[in-house]
Amino acid sequence: MPHIDLPDAPGILAGMMFRPETARPLNELAEVLLRGDSTLSRGDRETIAAYVSLLNDCEFCHNSHATFAALQVDGGWELVDEVMADPASAPITPKLRALLAVAAQVQQSGRNVTAAAIDDAKAQGATDVEIHDTVLIAAAFCMFNRYVDGLDTIAPPTREDYEPMGRMIVEDGYAASTPPAG
Amino acid sequence: MPHIDLPDAPGILAGMMFRPETARPLNELAEVLLRGDSTLSRGDRETIAAYVSLLNDCEFCHNSHATFAALQVDGGWELVDEVMADPASAPITPKLRALLAVAAQVQQSGRNVTAAAIDDAKAQGATDVEIHDTVLIAAAFCMFNRYVDGLDTIAPPTREDYEPMGRMIVEDGYAASTPPAG
Repeated sequence: MPHIDLPDAPGILAGMMFRPETARPLNELAEVLLRGDSTLSRGDRETIAAYVSLLNDCEFCHNSHATFAALQVDGGWELVDEVMADPASAPITPKLRALLAVAAQVQQSGRNVTAAAIDDAKAQGATDVEIHDTVLIAAAFCMFNRYVDGLDTIAPPTREDYEPMGRMIVEDGYAASTPPAG
Repeated sequence: MPHIDLPDAPGILAGMMFRPETARPLNELAEVLLRGDSTLSRGDRETIAAYVSLLNDCEFCHNSHATFAALQVDGGWELVDEVMADPASAPITPKLRALLAVAAQVQQSGRNVTAAAIDDAKAQGATDVEIHDTVLIAAAFCMFNRYVDGLDTIAPPTREDYEPMGRMIVEDGYAASTPPAG
């Protein structure tokens, strides 16, 4: 049961319905980072978000963004499952593998990001903007994950539960899910 | 030296100048959380931000928000120093002390927030919105801190270096510091 009296909705949606004033910039941030103009595909960016959420043990965010990734990468759930099990051996580009390694360091602490991991990402072709966005996506999910679990929101148990939300996000984006300010 | 080729500016300002598209929602979030309408004073909210940044060992964010707190609490730097040294013994309200304890749990993980800490905050008079905002401020600084240190941005060394920025934030707010989209 959530720690405070939240609307009856799963995960971050409950927090966003409770406080539309903060929902707006949170959704705008997700929209720019995960769906805005970028040389990283939407699927790859959702994969980074799902991976950081897994490392933070946030069930709602992990299932949500793994679903959003599976709907947008060519390999679907099979590929997403392989990345989550072991990014080092999954059949992804060396660039995405290097960016996931940077994201894993950010998840621990900003101070844990090594010059060696950044150099490797650059050697695999990552641009400065791609590295910037990877750091900020990983950092942002350290926020979203803590927001969702810090309020002890409800996480639906099965993958199928996340599909309708996934189709909405893929079609209409994050900003469309901001509730009207109350 | 920053990990990527950033504009010559300290801390988060470098990231914001590099990527104005993400700067806008980040500043809007800070504005709503730290300066928007709230029954928590701006000084108390900046104190929570400074404390979480200290726990994350983020020098730039800690010095910035400790300055913004010192400029807005009645006790000034003397009080802020006491809170940062030991919130349990500092001369603050029992409510703020309980909210700082919740924030410290969020800093570790959303899953570390205990019903006991939430119950204590409620017993000390914290409302659901105040608890929500404390959780989200603490979560947001787990993002800002990782963003700033994950890019290895520059942190000016002395308190005095942060005062001009502090006076700008206190007078004009966070949104005013968003650079124009490039």
